[in-house]
Amino acid sequence: MKTVIHTITPIITQGIRQLDDIRELERPDLEVRHSILDKGPASIESEFDEALSVPDTIKKAIEAEQDGAHAIVIDCMGDPGLDACREVVSIPVLGPCQTSMYAAGMLAHSFGFITVLGRLRPLIDNMVSKYGIDAKYVSFQAINIPVLEISHDPAKLNEALTEKAILSVQQDGADAIILGCTGFLGCAVAMRRGLLDAGLDVPVIDPIPLAVHVAEALVKTGLSHSRRTWPLPDIKGLAGYDMPGFPGTMKQREVA
Amino acid sequence: MKTVIHTITPIITQGIRQLDDIRELERPDLEVRHSILDKGPASIESEFDEALSVPDTIKKAIEAEQDGAHAIVIDCMGDPGLDACREVVSIPVLGPCQTSMYAAGMLAHSFGFITVLGRLRPLIDNMVSKYGIDAKYVSFQAINIPVLEISHDPAKLNEALTEKAILSVQQDGADAIILGCTGFLGCAVAMRRGLLDAGLDVPVIDPIPLAVHVAEALVKTGLSHSRRTWPLPDIKGLAGYDMPGFPGTMKQREVA
Amino acid sequence: MKTVIHTITPIITQGIRQLDDIRELERPDLEVRHSILDKGPASIESEFDEALSVPDTIKKAIEAEQDGAHAIVIDCMGDPGLDACREVVSIPVLGPCQTSMYAAGMLAHSFGFITVLGRLRPLIDNMVSKYGIDAKYVSFQAINIPVLEISHDPAKLNEALTEKAILSVQQDGADAIILGCTGFLGCAVAMRRGLLDAGLDVPVIDPIPLAVHVAEALVKTGLSHSRRTWPLPDIKGLAGYDMPGFPGTMKQREVA
Amino acid sequence: MKTVIHTITPIITQGIRQLDDIRELERPDLEVRHSILDKGPASIESEFDEALSVPDTIKKAIEAEQDGAHAIVIDCMGDPGLDACREVVSIPVLGPCQTSMYAAGMLAHSFGFITVLGRLRPLIDNMVSKYGIDAKYVSFQAINIPVLEISHDPAKLNEALTEKAILSVQQDGADAIILGCTGFLGCAVAMRRGLLDAGLDVPVIDPIPLAVHVAEALVKTGLSHSRRTWPLPDIKGLAGYDMPGFPGTMKQREVA
Amino acid sequence: MKTVIHTITPIITQGIRQLDDIRELERPDLEVRHSILDKGPASIESEFDEALSVPDTIKKAIEAEQDGAHAIVIDCMGDPGLDACREVVSIPVLGPCQTSMYAAGMLAHSFGFITVLGRLRPLIDNMVSKYGIDAKYVSFQAINIPVLEISHDPAKLNEALTEKAILSVQQDGADAIILGCTGFLGCAVAMRRGLLDAGLDVPVIDPIPLAVHVAEALVKTGLSHSRRTWPLPDIKGLAGYDMPGFPGTMKQREVA
Amino acid sequence: MKTVIHTITPIITQGIRQLDDIRELERPDLEVRHSILDKGPASIESEFDEALSVPDTIKKAIEAEQDGAHAIVIDCMGDPGLDACREVVSIPVLGPCQTSMYAAGMLAHSFGFITVLGRLRPLIDNMVSKYGIDAKYVSFQAINIPVLEISHDPAKLNEALTEKAILSVQQDGADAIILGCTGFLGCAVAMRRGLLDAGLDVPVIDPIPLAVHVAEALVKTGLSHSRRTWPLPDIKGLAGYDMPGFPGTMKQREVA
Repeated sequence: MKTVIHTITPIITQGIRQLDDIRELERPDLEVRHSILDKGPASIESEFDEALSVPDTIKKAIEAEQDGAHAIVIDCMGDPGLDACREVVSIPVLGPCQTSMYAAGMLAHSFGFITVLGRLRPLIDNMVSKYGIDAKYVSFQAINIPVLEISHDPAKLNEALTEKAILSVQQDGADAIILGCTGFLGCAVAMRRGLLDAGLDVPVIDPIPLAVHVAEALVKTGLSHSRRTWPLPDIKGLAGYDMPGFPGTMKQREVA
Repeated sequence: MKTVIHTITPIITQGIRQLDDIRELERPDLEVRHSILDKGPASIESEFDEALSVPDTIKKAIEAEQDGAHAIVIDCMGDPGLDACREVVSIPVLGPCQTSMYAAGMLAHSFGFITVLGRLRPLIDNMVSKYGIDAKYVSFQAINIPVLEISHDPAKLNEALTEKAILSVQQDGADAIILGCTGFLGCAVAMRRGLLDAGLDVPVIDPIPLAVHVAEALVKTGLSHSRRTWPLPDIKGLAGYDMPGFPGTMKQREVA
Repeated sequence: MKTVIHTITPIITQGIRQLDDIRELERPDLEVRHSILDKGPASIESEFDEALSVPDTIKKAIEAEQDGAHAIVIDCMGDPGLDACREVVSIPVLGPCQTSMYAAGMLAHSFGFITVLGRLRPLIDNMVSKYGIDAKYVSFQAINIPVLEISHDPAKLNEALTEKAILSVQQDGADAIILGCTGFLGCAVAMRRGLLDAGLDVPVIDPIPLAVHVAEALVKTGLSHSRRTWPLPDIKGLAGYDMPGFPGTMKQREVA
Repeated sequence: MKTVIHTITPIITQGIRQLDDIRELERPDLEVRHSILDKGPASIESEFDEALSVPDTIKKAIEAEQDGAHAIVIDCMGDPGLDACREVVSIPVLGPCQTSMYAAGMLAHSFGFITVLGRLRPLIDNMVSKYGIDAKYVSFQAINIPVLEISHDPAKLNEALTEKAILSVQQDGADAIILGCTGFLGCAVAMRRGLLDAGLDVPVIDPIPLAVHVAEALVKTGLSHSRRTWPLPDIKGLAGYDMPGFPGTMKQREVA
Repeated sequence: MKTVIHTITPIITQGIRQLDDIRELERPDLEVRHSILDKGPASIESEFDEALSVPDTIKKAIEAEQDGAHAIVIDCMGDPGLDACREVVSIPVLGPCQTSMYAAGMLAHSFGFITVLGRLRPLIDNMVSKYGIDAKYVSFQAINIPVLEISHDPAKLNEALTEKAILSVQQDGADAIILGCTGFLGCAVAMRRGLLDAGLDVPVIDPIPLAVHVAEALVKTGLSHSRRTWPLPDIKGLAGYDMPGFPGTMKQREVA
Repeated sequence: MKTVIHTITPIITQGIRQLDDIRELERPDLEVRHSILDKGPASIESEFDEALSVPDTIKKAIEAEQDGAHAIVIDCMGDPGLDACREVVSIPVLGPCQTSMYAAGMLAHSFGFITVLGRLRPLIDNMVSKYGIDAKYVSFQAINIPVLEISHDPAKLNEALTEKAILSVQQDGADAIILGCTGFLGCAVAMRRGLLDAGLDVPVIDPIPLAVHVAEALVKTGLSHSRRTWPLPDIKGLAGYDMPGFPGTMKQREVA
């Protein structure tokens, strides 16, 4: 049986480079689907952007489950809408930030997070606290290139990321690196080579390939998120938002 | 000079009992204004509800600042949209949950949180972690009455709240009580009397009166939130949301 | 009705510059009173100093309540005698350090503390742990000017404070600054201007004005500290200290 | 290409029921191999047992890598030898306890751990601290049946496990359950059914199937553990232990 | 050479039973001296009591060092004046609470604290936080007998302590017990016997004998507290307190 | 009566300089015995080394108790086998790392750890977490000289240690220093002199003399570790290891 992982890029901008790369993860028994938003921001670089990305992400998650996906991966390192999506669907929903941070906890004594803009630090710190993984998080670094410009000069991007990764390891004591923006998809190979050239043999986590494979692992193990933590929402009245077939089609999960 | 505090109830339901009570806080030098939402949920009892309450809360916050308010209080114990609102306005924005938890840290060695539904526990726990006040939070109790039913039987409500408050103090070791739903406005008096009757002399924090007065204190002291934590968002493109005069009218704060 | 806030400067030194500044906080409905000690140290810069400041601070707190104050603010960033005073009076007692740290938690993701002497670090760290606000405390800086010399050269003081504040923000990641000595009263304006000139838009908390206004907010909300945390002391015998009318006049607090 | 996961059961006891069950995880593209120890304890129920299981586990890990495995799973919830094995091999080594705890962090707000004997609590607590996942760990329960007796009466085992799981959820607040002994393999289905019958819809994590699938996910993503955290050991002299081909055959990992 | 340990009981009450017991610790090479206060409270059961015990404790500590003691033990589980005393003397000063909590961390996975009155909980919790030993502290129990009455009925005292100790182990998970009042001196033997009779083989720490022997160990190892943490106080002026020979006789410690 | 402390150096290398120094701790009433291993590594500098040192350390601990020792000190800063040894003997077993860290908590506000190799950082960090003393641990420094070379050039060793100690105090904020390798025995005197020359009056903890004297203090106080934390192991079958007289001679501890 083919496992279907549905990725949702929670922005409205078409044609971001990484979408083809997501499809490269497909195997004969793994299908990777994809949605972007109709309503929301052009990119996510603030609490404002994130707040406006969530309603349509919820809608796309409901549709993905209705279309037969086995798991959902939200394609943004802010994990926007992760909690709300888990309430409305029964299949596993993964945030690449949460998945990467726990994987880093397995792969190293400590990790560093390298992202686009310094202003994102409070958001990342807050996620670390929420996920309870503070003890492993030792470094935050930003390349200070906005999301919509990261594909303009791939060589410069790789150089900036590698430089910050070296700083993160040598100065801040990170023993693993997390790519802090899903727009960095594919940069891990060059960064790891650059780190090895500097004598630093540490893993570089590319969040989307990791999250897709971990989602697949959860599906094969028959696990999904807890209804005690994320119960179905009780819909009492809602103005201004159109949620497809909600809540009538909400499926009950089978016993694993 | 009159201080103007603007409260935003982030739901669409008209005629909730408490609105008059908010006005009771007014003094000759204190004006309390109020908005509810045009788009959003009927009440907030899930991550789903909260996510859909945020976009219009942001809009109301922008409008409140444009209309001359000196500070904003979000009238929900989930503090929905607190971070995003702080990004888009320069006047202080207070969440009653954050304000109450820090006040409880001043007024007692430990606090208990008493709210409507048990399912809210993860949301509250996550806020405690985000606000970094875990060391003082020792008790979560729920009366299991939905938000839209709390005004049906005031006597029963006060009894249920008092019972849970006594449990919170005696069994869980709470030395102060936070009313965990802003719909409980005004219940603190009866609860405190009930606690004293049981020999338990602990403060009961009614979040909205507290937040309004603390907002006033911040205005008088000339303090607002940090632009390093909540920088102005950079608007690059936005579909499906209409934000009034944004970002042109964003005011720069004066030196305190 | 006029709210009366009583400030106690827990040292014996007359004529410190700041006392007039405290009176500037008065409004038609706010009276600010003041005491200094008869017995105790000339300034507080050690655990030894602090220990010897507490007994007479307790006495002054009892007298302040007997004289009709509605709340007490201890005018020292070591919060000396805060717990003991709360045991012996029923009106709110505020420590400016505790109040500032919690306010900083509301106004920013992180804060830095700038004080007179480096030797105070263990005292400050211990208060942070006691108040449970460790997660927000990222920077401690000292100007290394003793308390009794800070008024000698105001320009040099402002320059030293601003320099350390910039270091605190840029190097240590503080998103808000707390003035770590109540003798710095009034320096916040120049510091905030200096920070803005350096492109750093962060709040600078001047603890005494903040504590006076927050004390007023608690009085208006009808809140005081918990008797479960600070029960009335049971007086069994006491040699060498004279406590006025104690414990006979201890008033029972009314229901809020 | 077929992924090869090698499981090592770090005890000397042949014929434990679960070995066939591990093979059930095989798919056309997944091979699961298995070793037990030549030297070591009959079961692991103490620090003493665990200490004596580690040397031969290290040897089996070296052999597994030499035989072409792509990843190793240690088949014991004490994760014995996890750190030492990561030093001596370059392929991923997974401990089921670590993997389950991080997965529980993804699947629920909190988790409970249900194991054989109460005396294991310090070992489990210490692993929780080491993995830095304290914030999610809310419950420890033991059925008090020794490891070597758990297969004697499967019905009684399932009943005991389900009873403790219900206690863990209802009394201790666990929103997910981790099976705390790999000898419980296969019990998750009955437990989850028992929990659902009690109205408790929480995931039950069966650590070995999870760890095998997560190991596969890491292999597919090209990730292994950090050499900064677990550098190759420098062999200076060793008496009484025979390590095969060590350290001559230590392979350098390729760039991911 | 004879080691001299000076104990200071920081209250004014003569003839407390335990003083002879302290002398029982003497050996040919160990002398145990003792002081009580001239000014201060009859017993320490509140923050108020503790605050008034500190000034004269400091004086007695200075005198003890001047009289040739090698180390000082403060005979109260509130560790009153510990920090201030370390500032004014150069010989080691031990608090029995701090010493017992760290020893409990060595002797068990967790500890419970059993004291006279429930009202002391905030003081104990605050010391735990200050000493950074939160992870091991799992239980607080009080027998609710005031300090000055504990010697009235030794059999009843032992029974009450043993009952709470059993509760602390069985219900709260304590693996060691700390006697939370130095007035309980000598009760550990009966308590340990009572615990063993209940099948609970856990250590019971009697703080004063432990602190005296640990003080001796520090003297033999040549260690004292850090002057970076507790620098000599700078005496600028002091009203109402008479400190003998201070600061002229302050001795510089020799290199260990 | 003579107190007998047995030290076990958990490596196979004869003639390490420090053994004579251990004997210097002897007094008329203190005997210090010593064992090294028959099976194990030449030195301990990795998880691999540590794992292979534990089985024979356990054996030597059993023998030491059978030979009449009153307490055991494991002579390695990794505290190898500490938990397992506590399970199999009833006399106190001390790890010098645990003992030093708790002593540092008594002697200073913070401590730094200075050891041989940077690669040991995860092991030390993990011990800090396990011992729950994270709040006091502010600095890790390594001189990068392997264990077996530290006696080659004593002057260079003292210089390297002093340089790192100064860095630890001035840059990292350590107020006490722990010698992080028991092979540094005796270096504390020169380091403390070097620190004083740099104006830094902080204690330097030499772990073995400290642990021997603290072991003696525990023996005199009649305390040993908790059987609730470390119950006797239940021996069910064991291949490849020969444990002398185990478990027949396991002695029950007497009531303290």
